[in-house]
Amino acid sequence: MHKTYSLRNARTPTAAQLQNPPPPTASTRGKFFGKGGIAFAFRRNAAGAMGPDLSRKLSQLVKIEKNVLRAMETAANERREAATQLSLWGLENDDDVSDITDKLGVLVYEMSELDDQFIDRYDQYRLTMKSVRDIENSVQPSRDRKDKVADRIAFMRYKEPDNVQKIEVLEQELVRAEAESLVAEAQLSNITRSKLKAAFNYQFESMIEHSEKVALIAGYGKALLELLDDSPVTPGETRPAYDGYEASKQIIIDAEAALNEWTLDYAQVKPTLSFKQEDYADYESESDSDIERAHAQGEPHEEEQHGEDGDLWNNEEGAPVHAQTTTTTTTEQTTVAV
Amino acid sequence: MHKTYSLRNARTPTAAQLQNPPPPTASTRGKFFGKGGIAFAFRRNAAGAMGPDLSRKLSQLVKIEKNVLRAMETAANERREAATQLSLWGLENDDDVSDITDKLGVLVYEMSELDDQFIDRYDQYRLTMKSVRDIENSVQPSRDRKDKVADRIAFMRYKEPDNVQKIEVLEQELVRAEAESLVAEAQLSNITRSKLKAAFNYQFESMIEHSEKVALIAGYGKALLELLDDSPVTPGETRPAYDGYEASKQIIIDAEAALNEWTLDYAQVKPTLSFKQEDYADYESESDSDIERAHAQGEPHEEEQHGEDGDLWNNEEGAPVHAQTTTTTTTEQTTVAV
Repeated sequence: MHKTYSLRNARTPTAAQLQNPPPPTASTRGKFFGKGGIAFAFRRNAAGAMGPDLSRKLSQLVKIEKNVLRAMETAANERREAATQLSLWGLENDDDVSDITDKLGVLVYEMSELDDQFIDRYDQYRLTMKSVRDIENSVQPSRDRKDKVADRIAFMRYKEPDNVQKIEVLEQELVRAEAESLVAEAQLSNITRSKLKAAFNYQFESMIEHSEKVALIAGYGKALLELLDDSPVTPGETRPAYDGYEASKQIIIDAEAALNEWTLDYAQVKPTLSFKQEDYADYESESDSDIERAHAQGEPHEEEQHGEDGDLWNNEEGAPVHAQTTTTTTTEQTTVAV
Repeated sequence: MHKTYSLRNARTPTAAQLQNPPPPTASTRGKFFGKGGIAFAFRRNAAGAMGPDLSRKLSQLVKIEKNVLRAMETAANERREAATQLSLWGLENDDDVSDITDKLGVLVYEMSELDDQFIDRYDQYRLTMKSVRDIENSVQPSRDRKDKVADRIAFMRYKEPDNVQKIEVLEQELVRAEAESLVAEAQLSNITRSKLKAAFNYQFESMIEHSEKVALIAGYGKALLELLDDSPVTPGETRPAYDGYEASKQIIIDAEAALNEWTLDYAQVKPTLSFKQEDYADYESESDSDIERAHAQGEPHEEEQHGEDGDLWNNEEGAPVHAQTTTTTTTEQTTVAV
């Protein structure tokens, strides 16, 4: 990640980036590839060119996300074909290679099915962002009307300063337009925030589900590979007969069961947040503000947080303090999380 | 996954699939999309058309994997653009939306960087499979030569059965060709297995790394979203000033640290293998064969296995038995894992 922690500023390479050379670049990567063709470029460039200014940037984002979806879809479809091809190739080989490539194909196929599910969910995120764009579109006219009335008043004052009656009428119109605009801006602000939050929460949750499931399948795939006898044979020697059919089938059954059981509560990969106290000394006066922050942020693994910040809990009362702090959290949540 | 646990047979829908309707299909999915254009189709159809029969299926697989790579690359590039666009859109909004979209952009950008790393590694897998194809290519001539000599002997026996000298020369040639072919087939068998195992182990490991890192970033993204104040305001009301700059920066720093610390040993998502004893009663006579199987398969979390199968370890000696069993495992590994 960047030194600057922002995409808007120029990026400087970190010392680690300079020290550790990256892995060899894929042979398929190049200047001409990865651009996605004419349709992708058209969508990207034409987006927002016709609509109001306000929603132009978000229109482009929605179109780029459509490109992302299309590319992911192609990848999923190709991977599904690769799974089938792997299984077909294995069929011509010995029993063990045949069985294991077939089962590997099943796992890879399942991954592309998961990709498809993820694509459907990613589309929900995109549609939510699209509805923000629609709100932006609908707010634009009320802004325009207000500006237009204000312009006309300025024009009248300069051109016909004596036409008080006309100017008064226009000023009343301006008040009405301002009121309408005020409501529209508040709606825009509210809806943008709630939709943005909902859209990205949904995206991240489906990403967590997809990633963990893929990692699970990959783990079972590694177990499957252990069934493959890769000890070298001398010419003329025959390999011992393959008896892993039951084991390989059991691995697929286990993988299937693990995928079916998976829920978001079961997620293994958890972020650990370290809110250093000195960073917030200016904002909060209480000593255990960072723990409350973790609570306010819906931080899911309280135990670890308590473990890390255990020194803050070195109190004679122990657990009761915890209970008390969590109740105060709800009231202070608004000030912390704003 | 399929009832049949094989890609080669027809798939029957499970009861769960019939009961739970899938999520709404993405609006971008359709008959015409996700095929990847002319270049993709050409690569898929032309692969292996020129080379020897033996390597045709694997040639196609390698080409399809190239399509997978290209599509993933497009997706990563588009996602990188989406991250930049998200940050640009946020810039026009209020302080909190601006800061949080910028930081979200940083996280999404980092995901596409991870995608790039994964693509480079996936290419290594592809190149390893490609080297298997090359071995298949090189084995084909020795098979052909053997067949050709055998054909010529049959032809001579039918056409000139009295030309014993010529037939003898050919039979000696056949013995040489068979010896060469025997070596070639052994090489093919050895190299196919070791490369297949190495390639998929590498792919699955890089998949685990990629997935867990993406899940980590998504977790930090969810924490970031909690900083966004989405409580509705009434028209004319101003929102409290945003003071989350330090917190959002800290989340990015934490995410960066977590990504840098991540190693494969640290992986959270582990498969749980259940090798039921009754399935193997026919194959093994010993009562604790399933545990040895788990050992032989490099099952990474011994504690859980021991926990589950604790009753098998109810022995007066306890730990010494464990030590003894693990040493016998190495000798029995070949029979178990073959």
